[in-house]
Amino acid sequence: MNNTQPLKGFRDFLPSEAEARNQVFDKVRTVFERYGFLPLETPAIEYKEVLSGKYGKEGEKLMYQFQDQGGRDVALRYDLTVPLARVIAQYPEDLPIPFKRYQIAPVWRADRPQKGRFREFTQCDIDVVGTSAILADAEVIACLNSSFKALGIEDVIVRVNNRKVLDGLMKAADVPVKKSVEAIRALDKIDKIGKEAVQKELSDLGVGAKEQKKLFELLEVGLEDSADIESKLDEIEGAGELAELVEALLDMEVRNYRIDLSLARGLDYYTGTIFEFILPDAADFGSVAGGGRYDKLLGMFSGKAVPAVGGSIGADRLLDALEELELVKYDLVSDVLVCNLDEKLEEKYLKVVQELRAAGIRTDFYYEPVKLDKQLKYADKKSVNFAVLIGEEEEKTEEATVKNLTTGKQERVKQKDLVKKLKG
Amino acid sequence: MNNTQPLKGFRDFLPSEAEARNQVFDKVRTVFERYGFLPLETPAIEYKEVLSGKYGKEGEKLMYQFQDQGGRDVALRYDLTVPLARVIAQYPEDLPIPFKRYQIAPVWRADRPQKGRFREFTQCDIDVVGTSAILADAEVIACLNSSFKALGIEDVIVRVNNRKVLDGLMKAADVPVKKSVEAIRALDKIDKIGKEAVQKELSDLGVGAKEQKKLFELLEVGLEDSADIESKLDEIEGAGELAELVEALLDMEVRNYRIDLSLARGLDYYTGTIFEFILPDAADFGSVAGGGRYDKLLGMFSGKAVPAVGGSIGADRLLDALEELELVKYDLVSDVLVCNLDEKLEEKYLKVVQELRAAGIRTDFYYEPVKLDKQLKYADKKSVNFAVLIGEEEEKTEEATVKNLTTGKQERVKQKDLVKKLKG
Repeated sequence: MNNTQPLKGFRDFLPSEAEARNQVFDKVRTVFERYGFLPLETPAIEYKEVLSGKYGKEGEKLMYQFQDQGGRDVALRYDLTVPLARVIAQYPEDLPIPFKRYQIAPVWRADRPQKGRFREFTQCDIDVVGTSAILADAEVIACLNSSFKALGIEDVIVRVNNRKVLDGLMKAADVPVKKSVEAIRALDKIDKIGKEAVQKELSDLGVGAKEQKKLFELLEVGLEDSADIESKLDEIEGAGELAELVEALLDMEVRNYRIDLSLARGLDYYTGTIFEFILPDAADFGSVAGGGRYDKLLGMFSGKAVPAVGGSIGADRLLDALEELELVKYDLVSDVLVCNLDEKLEEKYLKVVQELRAAGIRTDFYYEPVKLDKQLKYADKKSVNFAVLIGEEEEKTEEATVKNLTTGKQERVKQKDLVKKLKG
Repeated sequence: MNNTQPLKGFRDFLPSEAEARNQVFDKVRTVFERYGFLPLETPAIEYKEVLSGKYGKEGEKLMYQFQDQGGRDVALRYDLTVPLARVIAQYPEDLPIPFKRYQIAPVWRADRPQKGRFREFTQCDIDVVGTSAILADAEVIACLNSSFKALGIEDVIVRVNNRKVLDGLMKAADVPVKKSVEAIRALDKIDKIGKEAVQKELSDLGVGAKEQKKLFELLEVGLEDSADIESKLDEIEGAGELAELVEALLDMEVRNYRIDLSLARGLDYYTGTIFEFILPDAADFGSVAGGGRYDKLLGMFSGKAVPAVGGSIGADRLLDALEELELVKYDLVSDVLVCNLDEKLEEKYLKVVQELRAAGIRTDFYYEPVKLDKQLKYADKKSVNFAVLIGEEEEKTEEATVKNLTTGKQERVKQKDLVKKLKG
């Protein structure tokens, strides 16, 4: 058996990359908790009937499913929303309502692997369940926005819209109801394919020239970055909600929003607010997070409609974007290597190692007194910052040589000052 | 579809429990990194041929396996060691050697669920690959030991032994080679079934009375807690290694070891040092961590033997033990709730919320100005520490009432001093 590659569409994360991922997840988690979201964990495997029929025909095909040893039909977690719906139905008495939860976990989809798309990938989800308050919509957006800031991303834009406004636009432009969903899908592509191509699609759908003109006039209003959206769209249904969202965003100091009346996203899914985050400096990665209000979905298990709003960061795409923006460090995983120069001093080395570790310094020790060159090569491969050298000479004066492995500079310090030196 | 329970043997972790788990994993990870271990992540799904034949007949049965959409035979991760072996073979040039890696991740086994045994559970593994130095064995033990200390466990004992010593004991007591493995297995049970029952098993195996007497004499030597093991066991093979381990443990300030010559563990697996951690205050949980040196296993993919030593914390059992020892907090998941007393003050509330969050305080806000009672009930269910109340009266003097939700005490503070008050 010689095939030691991971499965197609799956990845090994070697230390520097795994460390970078940990750092990103830690930062995101800290922000989520700061916004009052609580952690929830659900199993990787669910009864198939829990997941089945929730993701459309396409999703059903991509779901990993099998029979377990007990003959049960089971499936691997496909997203974090359906398990949330199950939890909401299963523990009605145990959860504070509104239930604000986050989950950062891998999901599995047997999709065709391609650049940036994997069969195992991590989602970072936040959701507020059990309230229709638009403040919750704003808080989800503000929280995701803060996550990007915490990751050091300066330039991020959140496009916002409202499903009801989309329907209202169609009505106001006299687009027939049965054409409106497809017309919305066409509008959604305006950034990608341009106005003319959208016009052609609308014409093919039978949307008349007069209606199209009105539609584009209304869209123009939206594309101006304005908090006064309500009066400008006063004849449009849902504009009040959108205006309320924008007001709340401003109260939460989110100013980097852009009202975009062409934004659609998951039409079978969202019922109110919709949003997505883009990074203008890394625009080719598309949307790195998105979400909205979905007041009908969570009732799937209980039969009772449960209002909810949520958002999700696509961690893998975000990590790729962070790499492009040079905002993620892929190399810093250990602080110090205590070198092994003299077998007789081993006890001393271990004492120093223990002291550094007790002070919280990530410290490595070379087990054998081999050539220093080999030890420093090891330190280099591990991206260690400092080497600590104690030979016979240093030991005489209770000193140590500290070598900065980035600059090559070295200096003598008292052994008792090592912690101070290396922590500073 | 009304079954909203997780699959049998699988668990949902609601917020307070998920939070406790996160805290434990964070502490363990911090210690692992402090000891110079680097993170590694491998996929949840592997080619079946990668895992197959590695866990014995019993393991093969417990492995979750299926065909994916592309007709590939795949299996879910069963432990973290075989994926490590695959990684070692796949990236020979990319890894620093010795390769010190940790992995904290769920594994899946279709075992019969029972108290403390689940089909999805988390392992926390550290391994040092590519060195035969006994210092590495000691470092693995010291690192796990520090993890338990970091979790606040005062009383922990690590039982240590060496596979070569076990073989040596059998030789010295003239136990025939073909009986020795079974005799070792019998000895391993001495703590559980007592000396007499072990003697009976040994007799049944045909181990003579004289040999048994010698065996128990030698065991007695080991059971004394002695660093002078080498001279006492001078005729026993492997005693030198065990003595070297003990010396290194003392150099690393690990004094809570106990030489236990009856300790066996995975006889097909370990080749040298073996160890396991027990918590005398929660002894019924059995061993909460264990490991040893396994110099033959990692060559499975490359064909070349790769020396290695490692250990694993069984996180689920450990969490149960921590709960029994009252060392894990299951309720503290948010710091502050800013109450909503007056719709007109909403902008002020959101300003305060933003300030607290910016200061790193985990802050929640009640979306609607419902009765205070209902808001405080929500805070209670969420185990929030403090409620911040700003009504018309407080607002006049730019003050806020801070209510300690544990003690019920409340006091007035200036709004501008809220961060200081709540961070202190």
